[in-house]
Amino acid sequence: MNTNPMITAGDKLHEECGVFGVYGHDDAAALTALGLHALQHRGQEAAGIVSFDGRQFMSERHLGLVGDVFGKHGHTENLRGAYAIGHVRYSTTGGPSGRNIQPMFADLTGGGLALAHNGNLTNARMLRRDLVREGAIFQSTSDTEAIVHLVARSHYELIVEKLIDALKRVEGAYSLVALTSKKMIGVRDSYGVRPLVLGRLDNAWIFASETCALDIIGAQFVRDVEPGEMVVITRDGIESLHPFPPRRRRFCIFEYVYFARPDSVVEGKNVYEVRKHIGMELAREAPAAADMVIPVPDSGLPAALGYASASGIPFELGIIRNHYVGRTFIEPSDPIRHLGVRLKHNANRVKLKGKRIVLVDDSIVRGTTSKKIVEMVRDAGATEVHFRIASPPTTHSCFYGVDTPNQDDLLAHKLDLEGMREFIRADSLAFISIQGLYRATGAATRDSGAPQFCDACFSGDYPIEPADAHEQRRQLSLLMEPV
Amino acid sequence: MNTNPMITAGDKLHEECGVFGVYGHDDAAALTALGLHALQHRGQEAAGIVSFDGRQFMSERHLGLVGDVFGKHGHTENLRGAYAIGHVRYSTTGGPSGRNIQPMFADLTGGGLALAHNGNLTNARMLRRDLVREGAIFQSTSDTEAIVHLVARSHYELIVEKLIDALKRVEGAYSLVALTSKKMIGVRDSYGVRPLVLGRLDNAWIFASETCALDIIGAQFVRDVEPGEMVVITRDGIESLHPFPPRRRRFCIFEYVYFARPDSVVEGKNVYEVRKHIGMELAREAPAAADMVIPVPDSGLPAALGYASASGIPFELGIIRNHYVGRTFIEPSDPIRHLGVRLKHNANRVKLKGKRIVLVDDSIVRGTTSKKIVEMVRDAGATEVHFRIASPPTTHSCFYGVDTPNQDDLLAHKLDLEGMREFIRADSLAFISIQGLYRATGAATRDSGAPQFCDACFSGDYPIEPADAHEQRRQLSLLMEPV
Amino acid sequence: MNTNPMITAGDKLHEECGVFGVYGHDDAAALTALGLHALQHRGQEAAGIVSFDGRQFMSERHLGLVGDVFGKHGHTENLRGAYAIGHVRYSTTGGPSGRNIQPMFADLTGGGLALAHNGNLTNARMLRRDLVREGAIFQSTSDTEAIVHLVARSHYELIVEKLIDALKRVEGAYSLVALTSKKMIGVRDSYGVRPLVLGRLDNAWIFASETCALDIIGAQFVRDVEPGEMVVITRDGIESLHPFPPRRRRFCIFEYVYFARPDSVVEGKNVYEVRKHIGMELAREAPAAADMVIPVPDSGLPAALGYASASGIPFELGIIRNHYVGRTFIEPSDPIRHLGVRLKHNANRVKLKGKRIVLVDDSIVRGTTSKKIVEMVRDAGATEVHFRIASPPTTHSCFYGVDTPNQDDLLAHKLDLEGMREFIRADSLAFISIQGLYRATGAATRDSGAPQFCDACFSGDYPIEPADAHEQRRQLSLLMEPV
Amino acid sequence: MNTNPMITAGDKLHEECGVFGVYGHDDAAALTALGLHALQHRGQEAAGIVSFDGRQFMSERHLGLVGDVFGKHGHTENLRGAYAIGHVRYSTTGGPSGRNIQPMFADLTGGGLALAHNGNLTNARMLRRDLVREGAIFQSTSDTEAIVHLVARSHYELIVEKLIDALKRVEGAYSLVALTSKKMIGVRDSYGVRPLVLGRLDNAWIFASETCALDIIGAQFVRDVEPGEMVVITRDGIESLHPFPPRRRRFCIFEYVYFARPDSVVEGKNVYEVRKHIGMELAREAPAAADMVIPVPDSGLPAALGYASASGIPFELGIIRNHYVGRTFIEPSDPIRHLGVRLKHNANRVKLKGKRIVLVDDSIVRGTTSKKIVEMVRDAGATEVHFRIASPPTTHSCFYGVDTPNQDDLLAHKLDLEGMREFIRADSLAFISIQGLYRATGAATRDSGAPQFCDACFSGDYPIEPADAHEQRRQLSLLMEPV
Repeated sequence: MNTNPMITAGDKLHEECGVFGVYGHDDAAALTALGLHALQHRGQEAAGIVSFDGRQFMSERHLGLVGDVFGKHGHTENLRGAYAIGHVRYSTTGGPSGRNIQPMFADLTGGGLALAHNGNLTNARMLRRDLVREGAIFQSTSDTEAIVHLVARSHYELIVEKLIDALKRVEGAYSLVALTSKKMIGVRDSYGVRPLVLGRLDNAWIFASETCALDIIGAQFVRDVEPGEMVVITRDGIESLHPFPPRRRRFCIFEYVYFARPDSVVEGKNVYEVRKHIGMELAREAPAAADMVIPVPDSGLPAALGYASASGIPFELGIIRNHYVGRTFIEPSDPIRHLGVRLKHNANRVKLKGKRIVLVDDSIVRGTTSKKIVEMVRDAGATEVHFRIASPPTTHSCFYGVDTPNQDDLLAHKLDLEGMREFIRADSLAFISIQGLYRATGAATRDSGAPQFCDACFSGDYPIEPADAHEQRRQLSLLMEPV
Repeated sequence: MNTNPMITAGDKLHEECGVFGVYGHDDAAALTALGLHALQHRGQEAAGIVSFDGRQFMSERHLGLVGDVFGKHGHTENLRGAYAIGHVRYSTTGGPSGRNIQPMFADLTGGGLALAHNGNLTNARMLRRDLVREGAIFQSTSDTEAIVHLVARSHYELIVEKLIDALKRVEGAYSLVALTSKKMIGVRDSYGVRPLVLGRLDNAWIFASETCALDIIGAQFVRDVEPGEMVVITRDGIESLHPFPPRRRRFCIFEYVYFARPDSVVEGKNVYEVRKHIGMELAREAPAAADMVIPVPDSGLPAALGYASASGIPFELGIIRNHYVGRTFIEPSDPIRHLGVRLKHNANRVKLKGKRIVLVDDSIVRGTTSKKIVEMVRDAGATEVHFRIASPPTTHSCFYGVDTPNQDDLLAHKLDLEGMREFIRADSLAFISIQGLYRATGAATRDSGAPQFCDACFSGDYPIEPADAHEQRRQLSLLMEPV
Repeated sequence: MNTNPMITAGDKLHEECGVFGVYGHDDAAALTALGLHALQHRGQEAAGIVSFDGRQFMSERHLGLVGDVFGKHGHTENLRGAYAIGHVRYSTTGGPSGRNIQPMFADLTGGGLALAHNGNLTNARMLRRDLVREGAIFQSTSDTEAIVHLVARSHYELIVEKLIDALKRVEGAYSLVALTSKKMIGVRDSYGVRPLVLGRLDNAWIFASETCALDIIGAQFVRDVEPGEMVVITRDGIESLHPFPPRRRRFCIFEYVYFARPDSVVEGKNVYEVRKHIGMELAREAPAAADMVIPVPDSGLPAALGYASASGIPFELGIIRNHYVGRTFIEPSDPIRHLGVRLKHNANRVKLKGKRIVLVDDSIVRGTTSKKIVEMVRDAGATEVHFRIASPPTTHSCFYGVDTPNQDDLLAHKLDLEGMREFIRADSLAFISIQGLYRATGAATRDSGAPQFCDACFSGDYPIEPADAHEQRRQLSLLMEPV
Repeated sequence: MNTNPMITAGDKLHEECGVFGVYGHDDAAALTALGLHALQHRGQEAAGIVSFDGRQFMSERHLGLVGDVFGKHGHTENLRGAYAIGHVRYSTTGGPSGRNIQPMFADLTGGGLALAHNGNLTNARMLRRDLVREGAIFQSTSDTEAIVHLVARSHYELIVEKLIDALKRVEGAYSLVALTSKKMIGVRDSYGVRPLVLGRLDNAWIFASETCALDIIGAQFVRDVEPGEMVVITRDGIESLHPFPPRRRRFCIFEYVYFARPDSVVEGKNVYEVRKHIGMELAREAPAAADMVIPVPDSGLPAALGYASASGIPFELGIIRNHYVGRTFIEPSDPIRHLGVRLKHNANRVKLKGKRIVLVDDSIVRGTTSKKIVEMVRDAGATEVHFRIASPPTTHSCFYGVDTPNQDDLLAHKLDLEGMREFIRADSLAFISIQGLYRATGAATRDSGAPQFCDACFSGDYPIEPADAHEQRRQLSLLMEPV
């Protein structure tokens, strides 16, 4: 029997959140559930919606996929009203807990405030320490709650002012959507690290992390919310504020590589097209003498098509994915785990036998999955395996809302190219260059003084100082509460 | 078919809470679960325990009976440590919600604080309004949370000082138990409206609402916590503080009438004995020519025994209770409800036929149950029904932690004695006098200038001003969150 | 701390079933749920109802109490139609399993048949072996299923004939209720070991194990179904058949001692009255010099009242029962179990201290509970404990539908009277004589040649040969299927 | 907003079952769970495993996906032993019910028998009627239960003989796996309509519906079980019986078109290869002037690659599938349903705009999905849509284990080619010819007198008479029992 350790889904970077909001539609909560379903790839652990019916806020926040939480026997029927915001979440540190599910909510003197956040605050721990010292009682371990407390304590009168006041004290990456009894607000941090778009459905306004969430409900794309912009929607229309100091735009380039859905258009470019171009650049930068190009499904598919098209080597589906395993992994019971089984992928032996293969994937994180895939392809009879990666080596951790392993666990941090090749046992290994990646996005050459994207995971060039990372951690008296 | 409306358990006053705490025993959480089980009659909606293992606080708070929540497949195993406090809760306004389950918890700069509360704050709403104005974010609708926020915001350094500071701003009735990483604290308000006792089990200290919760674990009764006293337990022993202004003791006399368990000793008197004496006083005050004395089970049982013993009329179990209905009621489905069935009680026809009955119950609230019981006894063939009540007419609402209907729904507020008799269709009706009740407790005559008990529900003489009751209610933006 | 082992509910004999049926009422299923609720004391493990709406049979069979299964959010709404039968079950060997929940159902060529059974077949294992040999596929471990297979295989044409044919092959005790698409049928075995009564509610006919189940829905008692009688109800009225050979009536005398509800009238006598008379006989047979008579709640209550009344010694509630423990026991988690706690009962120390006590209970089975009770009463300060038992020593197992321990576990089988007294550590111990018990039922002296009751558990005089008990057990390939 | 009705998964034919078995491996149940996971595409409603540990049979059968039922917190740990068989089921008539979940089990005189079945009996209803007449009690609505009753009633002595005896009375398609206390048995009907393969893992023997289930556990493919063959595995090895009359092999050609997983090798051919060749044949038979070939994901993917490769038109992923919708559909709540949303697929507008598209799918059943897909592609800006189908028109229902709509609902039964084109609003529409399909499988020209495959859904040429279809349906008294 095959005794390989299991191929884990853990060997990917993970977006930590997706946000969505509807202002002014009778089916606001149902639409939000759909939007979250389209954003499910941005977070699979939990889903939540807060709606407002003109009088009362209502909330449903549960662990599970959107389809389970808000599907047939789901919870949308409790969520009345024409106003709703929602959130999908990928697990962060501390394990899954019902208390961390967003949107967060606070009862302020001026009325209720619900808030959903995609990103990560780099000074959350310091803010939390200060707020606790001032008497704030935290209910979650989420950095988003710090924003809510800052809003609650702001001495400004209007909620929009309070929110601006709070965000001025916050550092890090955020695209957030808030709902009050009067307004829906969308904000992006000054660097615009995480995406946020504005859409329209009949007379309703929509916020969404990606355009695919507009498509699912047939909404029109209006425009990206700009870095540092706060879009405030009321019954009287929309208003655009720019309360934060302007910065050079640093959109996360990994959204193109892996996070965003291929049918989304983010910051003006179609994700599928960018990925295919990455494959084409990669074919030029790192050609291989081979019989077929095989994607690691599904993340390597567009780049593999690009590679095949640019190289003229035939494209084949040589690895079949079990569609009943989602992007996240249904964990097997222990006896199964030890068998090292192929729950997620299977090589099509008939196809691969005796062939020289170009294998294309989007990235290498720990390298454990890549190693298994190469081994599986060889076991199926491939004579040569040339591994091509549609991103530069991932050498640095992300502090802006992406779940990356510790730097020490990143294969590209530990080994040089030849070391990596040896580790994954490929006949050859090549990553696209960072310049090639920029070219594939349609950008000019990367400006190393002021890069057009946040590419810190490849370059270590962090646009925002990760303040918390530098300070000693105080042990908080967090209450353990199993869900 | 019998078309009487259903006999509802709603026709009783309900204690809203019971508290329990263990300091210094390896099985702290399991003991607390037992203690709460013995206090189940003080609250059947939800149960919670917070424990501390010297490093970490752990919590399990769930809707349901103690046996379900902490029984065989229950949650005590997650609750490690030698320190634990627990709480049982009867539903208050706003319906059942997971967010209101106590003990409440806060992470303070000095460490964690868990708090369990029996009673009711009479200025909770005003405190809440002020706290929200200052930026506090409330997670529950419970008045207890106001105490927690006051503690969190106190400028004193030590948690004991913070708690004293907080309680000085609080008005109302409370017996509360708190747990920090160093201490367990028990406090009663200056009037001592709600009970709280101190016990000992080997080297461990115990707090409990009633002595029956000491008995269940074989703990020794030490003494009552005094009105206005704060008992602080540390590794070094116990300390008694009296930080609040002294008041004349006003223990809730209804604890003797109905709330407390008959085997408990509260404020020095055995509850069963008091109840039996009430029955004896009642036989003297309101004799009847009858063939047998029948209790309304189980609350009327001790008083009926007293009545029988003092009157010489034989005591019989003429009404049988279905033991699979708890003190709370398993609600039937709608079709059943309309049948007007006797889910809880059944008259023993053979016994009652052709007899003159003295029927004894502890109290009349709305009167709807009493009416059904009288009708059931008559249907069973009784020729006369003389109803005797072991408390004075309940004419006023309680603001100190007892769930009473609006005053307008109290039968004794709406009707005079003859009106009530007619309503419940008894041949005669009598309540014990308030003086008789005092006599049964062993007290001297009631001092109408400074009554020895809180008897506001009978007299309207409220020891503590119900501040909230006088002010306009602001609609809070409370988040509706179905459990 | 008290280190007594836990007081277990296991130390009682348990009736294994209760049955109920309604023919011709729009709310048939809801009424059946109520009837089962009133019969809950006859079986707490599972409850089931099959209804028929003139076209289709519908079924809901679940583990749990009737209130949980068919209560507020329960399952009655799926059970349409004017015809329904139901069943409550106490666990037998093999642990709880969904497959054993009655009523059983079979699709016969002539239409559907549902069947609910109270009792026990003494040749079930032999029947099963033969039926399996002939190709019958058993789905449960219940002896009732053998009846269903016999009916299905009968060569008679009409279902009534098939049922008679089947029951002629069956030995043992049974009171059963069956429902077909045309008829409701009630049958008792020729000895009439288990009770079954006929009632009327408006135009509907009712079958029930006890009259208390008629009372709960306001139905009129018509008469007992006679031993060996089959009552067939159709749209045209009722028909009485006597297809089985007549036998001397041998009703289970333990129904009076413990099983039946005190408000029921069974075989013409009120259970409460019989129990009270047992207490009176007991006082005459076994007087004691004591200060008070204390019942073990709740089963000892009526006999204790009888004892007190005949002896002139005051009756007191010296042991308080926790009403949140049902007749069955909510099992505590392991750590709690080892504490030896008083989950179910508590002695009222104030009352018992320094007193000589007559303690009255209905029976002694293993004796473990009695021992704990005596110890608890002594711990509370009683100076003498005189234990009086309202039944003769239980020396033999029951084979007719009552869950008894193996004979070797019966205290009265292992020890003589003095040995038992010593074991339970009472100052004196007395059981009522079997003649005294007969007197209390109003019967003449027990006819030892042909006793008027089945009293095999006291006398070893078994009316029906327990055939299975004599044969070797073949290991059936039963499928283990956790619920 | 887009107002299209929802794209439903209902618009596919569905395989009704997959089977798997392990004989002689310590982790038999865990391996079976994995095998079933790999066969999940053959049935998503329920999953069951029966294992045997040498002494006892154990069973877990639940509604849900394999990952849910037997995953991390799943039920494999209860399934001890080195022998196990399992089953995945797609819902058939009568809705989901726990009673229908296989493997079925019977206790026979010779020991237990578990049985899992893929296929459909064409005389099940007649068999059932006869068996009920003879006294068999059916517990399910599954046709498989008829086989079990026939086995139980067989007069042969050995279970293998009984099974042969039973199968000789059965008509229809079946590939089944059985487990006794001594043997594991795999059988295919004489036509070999459904697949079944034999594999080896170390010393253990494996049966599986498809080879992909061998791959997932690293087992070796040994050979197909032959049509009409019964393979009996014991401790002493395997034995091949051929007890049924030989027939011309008629393997289901739709297994190649859609049912089987692309990485499986069935009846000697790789499914992916056959599908790609279908696409190539289709490109030759029905060329189109277009800018790109777009698959309907994921079922149209291999054929689209074949079409692109043969036609030279570029292949693009123009439709993106939401991976959080499985092959089955998570049903949305009602408000969502009415929005006509794109839960499952989204067109990549940027890619399709202004382009002439060849759209490739595997089949058209009702046509409703095809219509929505064409509309979606047009809405995204495609100027021409040429729809190409990788199977001939589906004109007839299947009676051999595939869930097909009534013939009247099949688009190809109602409309001619031009009518269908108009209905789905494509610019052109073409199906592969039946001869082209045979060519793609590598077969010679279809022998219309004795076709090499079962292609009845395309041709109406049914190899086995559907006996039940001709007879009047008797209304069985089936018990409705909600799960």
